[in-house]
Amino acid sequence: MANNSKVIKSSAYQWDSVPRKDYKDDRSCYKGVHRYALLGEQEDEQQLNFQTRYFEVEEGGYTSFEYHRHPHSVIIIRGSGTVILGDSLHDLGLHDVVFISPDTLHQFHADKGDPLGFICVVDRYRDRPTLPDIDEINQAITSEKVKEKIRR
Amino acid sequence: MANNSKVIKSSAYQWDSVPRKDYKDDRSCYKGVHRYALLGEQEDEQQLNFQTRYFEVEEGGYTSFEYHRHPHSVIIIRGSGTVILGDSLHDLGLHDVVFISPDTLHQFHADKGDPLGFICVVDRYRDRPTLPDIDEINQAITSEKVKEKIRR
Repeated sequence: MANNSKVIKSSAYQWDSVPRKDYKDDRSCYKGVHRYALLGEQEDEQQLNFQTRYFEVEEGGYTSFEYHRHPHSVIIIRGSGTVILGDSLHDLGLHDVVFISPDTLHQFHADKGDPLGFICVVDRYRDRPTLPDIDEINQAITSEKVKEKIRR
Repeated sequence: MANNSKVIKSSAYQWDSVPRKDYKDDRSCYKGVHRYALLGEQEDEQQLNFQTRYFEVEEGGYTSFEYHRHPHSVIIIRGSGTVILGDSLHDLGLHDVVFISPDTLHQFHADKGDPLGFICVVDRYRDRPTLPDIDEINQAITSEKVKEKIRR
């Protein structure tokens, strides 16, 4: 039996041989977020149809406000924060699970005095995110609380 | 935009509306393991092409010794233990990541005085595991340390 199985050791939210990267190339749409590609992006991991990433949002930071066709499966493994899911806000704490369904506008905020760190699993083959313009936002979001929370 | 996104709140390694289940129907091949289907099995989560589960192995317990064609992406979120990956043994601690490649014999052990809890992501459509017989084991495993570690 072929075997390219492996264990990637972790310490203090860092992983051996996994570099900390910028969250996105375009740094104008987010604040204080880093990305760790844990599994599924390396050449010897291509048998996986999905990719497992760790994102860490510094205290006061936020991810980009976006939507896309592919869903997200998220589990919080560090700290606390808030997530916008369409027209609602949800508090997040340790081990909370988030399902982000297709085309749902979303944004993670580390707004509770902690960093916010989460595992996010996505399909290997997926569409690129869209950053909505103000007309799209006004059409999709009716809650004033959510509108005030959005950072762009 | 359609939106069936949601947050599943967690406390003490339990999740709202997610029942603790037996690991497998056949209880003869494992010891002290429970399974929580976090995302991807419910009807309103079928847009996910993969399933996110949490497994918890009680202190002294172990999962079944098995192999299958689909790979696993695993991250430890509780305790410590050991994993057999083919012909080798690996210590596991908090946030360690495990890639289990296709057809690799594997077994998780909570053998370090702690429970061992981990997130395990798999394809929605996947083959069933095979429990090897003694001839298959003797052919695949040459390490005496691994042979002694296997529980069946």
